[in-house]
Amino acid sequence: MNAELAEDLRPSACELKPLIDHVVRYRGKQLRPGLVFLAGKVFDQVTPAHMTAAKVVELIHTATLVHDDILDSAEVRRQEPTLNQLHGNEVPVLLGDYIYALAFHMAVQLDDPACARLFSAAVRTVCEGEITQCLHRGDVAWDEARYFEVITQKTAILYGAAGQIGAHYASATPAQTAAMSEFGTDLGIAFQIMDDCLDLTGVEAVVGKSLGTDLGLGKLTLPLLQLLENSGDRRPRLLELVSSNGSERTAAEGLRELRAEFDVDASVEYSLSRARGFVDSGLRALDALPQGSARDAMATLADYVLRRNF
Amino acid sequence: MNAELAEDLRPSACELKPLIDHVVRYRGKQLRPGLVFLAGKVFDQVTPAHMTAAKVVELIHTATLVHDDILDSAEVRRQEPTLNQLHGNEVPVLLGDYIYALAFHMAVQLDDPACARLFSAAVRTVCEGEITQCLHRGDVAWDEARYFEVITQKTAILYGAAGQIGAHYASATPAQTAAMSEFGTDLGIAFQIMDDCLDLTGVEAVVGKSLGTDLGLGKLTLPLLQLLENSGDRRPRLLELVSSNGSERTAAEGLRELRAEFDVDASVEYSLSRARGFVDSGLRALDALPQGSARDAMATLADYVLRRNF
Repeated sequence: MNAELAEDLRPSACELKPLIDHVVRYRGKQLRPGLVFLAGKVFDQVTPAHMTAAKVVELIHTATLVHDDILDSAEVRRQEPTLNQLHGNEVPVLLGDYIYALAFHMAVQLDDPACARLFSAAVRTVCEGEITQCLHRGDVAWDEARYFEVITQKTAILYGAAGQIGAHYASATPAQTAAMSEFGTDLGIAFQIMDDCLDLTGVEAVVGKSLGTDLGLGKLTLPLLQLLENSGDRRPRLLELVSSNGSERTAAEGLRELRAEFDVDASVEYSLSRARGFVDSGLRALDALPQGSARDAMATLADYVLRRNF
Repeated sequence: MNAELAEDLRPSACELKPLIDHVVRYRGKQLRPGLVFLAGKVFDQVTPAHMTAAKVVELIHTATLVHDDILDSAEVRRQEPTLNQLHGNEVPVLLGDYIYALAFHMAVQLDDPACARLFSAAVRTVCEGEITQCLHRGDVAWDEARYFEVITQKTAILYGAAGQIGAHYASATPAQTAAMSEFGTDLGIAFQIMDDCLDLTGVEAVVGKSLGTDLGLGKLTLPLLQLLENSGDRRPRLLELVSSNGSERTAAEGLRELRAEFDVDASVEYSLSRARGFVDSGLRALDALPQGSARDAMATLADYVLRRNF
């Protein structure tokens, strides 16, 4: 898939090449395309449409990363300086648009419009989730229910769609397709919770991206909500830290104070247990699928999501 | 179409409503959807697919406007403060993505994939053109040939696609479809030249958007290239003005100096004559189409593009 993607991304204008090369280095864990292929494999039917759908979901994810870096004013992504750090905001906005358009253009080459329909709807939902999160930065009325709603929209829907489309193109039954969608969604929710924990406890050199940005931007993630819940009379100080909405430097300082003065470990432990709950529910959904190496690999993937430190 | 669009844009999350309402007020001349409908009407066959394609091209254009305002750091668009002026860059990035996804989602509901295929390819080209322009800001080696190449990519391709898709869904012959594509493309090129002239000579209260931004951002438009060509020994000062790459205030000041010290009128007159050339070529392409009120309306549209002052 990555070899094909490199070909597909070869730009017609030579000016774009260094930008594309840069973005290609963002390549990460590729869990979403992995889900597409595994969902085909579990039904013993991996088709050319799976390859296309895998590339589409990976490109969409890449486009969201390029635009996320603008949102987060992030300086580092996967150990590389972000594009906005190198070029200001203009080029990353356009490059993200370019990658989205490439993804849709690929999807609409398939005769079966399921991929194009599912992923264009999914991107709408992702954007709605991201906008909602943006508009509620530092909103102290934010709660767990809204957190789970937003991470389902902004993150888990792409995982769910990846599982669903893989099952669809493998001619799975509606019940099996729904099970793959459910497994993907649960995996995505768990993934995002772990991501939000890593933003507080990770080691920047290992995680490979700027940390403490949620805190700096007033994003009320699950571990931060849990900290607020248990902060007692230090709640006012915690609220200040969360809503300082400052520069990267302030975020790093805020993170240091948070780690020193508040029980981050307990709050992360609680968040981990919630993530484990979603993984368990996802694994139960897998029971509806044929046994074998592909199903085992999905269980391993789910386990990995809970253990990753980058 | 606008009534349908208002329905389609109704967001599922209530937080998005004021943002969508804001963007709806950007509604402009709607030349692109007009072309889709006229291209159907000229063949006496306006179908539901025309409505969808018209909405798709209008939404894509709207998304590019929302993202353009970030690129241009513009403060005013269609007499309204821009979204980036109101919300910073994050929300407009996401809202533009949301509108793109909505456009693609609409396009892929059609059984005939022509609309989705044509417009997803067109958006890639638009982004390539915009990125090329961005990377060559203040580049004194820029020339007319590259200018025309870039405005064809970033602007004219959507006009061409609008004409082409309208003819396609009206079951036009390949030659007629090509003629509609050519007319749209020529119209789009003329439109962009006029836009670039208005950025130098327009009255902000009439044009309804920040002016002098091309100058301020070092965008070498046709009238600026022509000024450079004829600036003689004042070329160094002109280059300074073009590449100051400064704030909005500097742009306004630069524009004042440009208008006072250089022969802007002659350069705009030259650009107008080039725009007229494209309109004439587009009108010749119309000869391949059936005569009647729709063809007459397209000729009127072409004429309007040369006369508009906003």
